[in-house]
Amino acid sequence: MATSGIGTNVICQVAIVVGDIDQAVRTYADIFGVEVSGPITTGPQEETNIRYRGEPTPARAKLAFLQMGPQLSLELIEPIGGPSTWQEHLDKHGPGVHHIAFQIEGMDGVLDYLTAKGIATVQRGDYKGGRYAYADSRQNLGVVLELLERMKA
Amino acid sequence: MATSGIGTNVICQVAIVVGDIDQAVRTYADIFGVEVSGPITTGPQEETNIRYRGEPTPARAKLAFLQMGPQLSLELIEPIGGPSTWQEHLDKHGPGVHHIAFQIEGMDGVLDYLTAKGIATVQRGDYKGGRYAYADSRQNLGVVLELLERMKA
Repeated sequence: MATSGIGTNVICQVAIVVGDIDQAVRTYADIFGVEVSGPITTGPQEETNIRYRGEPTPARAKLAFLQMGPQLSLELIEPIGGPSTWQEHLDKHGPGVHHIAFQIEGMDGVLDYLTAKGIATVQRGDYKGGRYAYADSRQNLGVVLELLERMKA
Repeated sequence: MATSGIGTNVICQVAIVVGDIDQAVRTYADIFGVEVSGPITTGPQEETNIRYRGEPTPARAKLAFLQMGPQLSLELIEPIGGPSTWQEHLDKHGPGVHHIAFQIEGMDGVLDYLTAKGIATVQRGDYKGGRYAYADSRQNLGVVLELLERMKA
């Protein structure tokens, strides 16, 4: 693992926004012969503390996960319910890869490091056992970064 | 490895089109602390046999590669020289993930299989030691697939 500003260079997940997750899940299962976990729906704002561009949003998402390599998962995301970086991507570009994800430690430190490089945090929230943030590095790296941090027990 | 229509479910590469590969390489190296292979420039049409939407094209690309996981490389692509699926992506969407790649065997059989599923071949060509094709599965899978096949010795 490389030592760097974010402490890792290992992509653990590639995430794709789609308009119809059920159709996408069927097509992936058909073409790649893989099992799919989900779709599940993310929790409400009061549970996930989701914030988009600094403000709480009612946005949620349907998510499904497929193992597409020994250490790589593919996440499918169908945005629902309100403004989010997922919905913005789908509205502007149609279906496409939204982000690549990295497991990190010390979320606030990593986000401060990226902000100092001109890469702003665009959305963040919690999920069971962890938290995530998206850093909008599209102009710098060509893709949004997702930072994932497991909660300490 | 899953048995399926294309014979694999292992993503070996994630590829991102950018407008300025030198700037992108510097930023990746800085943020992830990884070594970069390249940029190199792809060969001329008479060498690569590149065809875009069925026709020969003078398009070329500057390419750079970064190891971003034990079995995953990240490819940066700056399109140059003429019409290509890379240039089309950059013109329509700006910088972004262009495709995910898979090592396959039996290129024509795999492309026929995908075409029968409504997923057309949009570009193909050769490189030293192998050949590639892009299948335009954006509406079906949310992303273009790249199929890579090593030439038999």
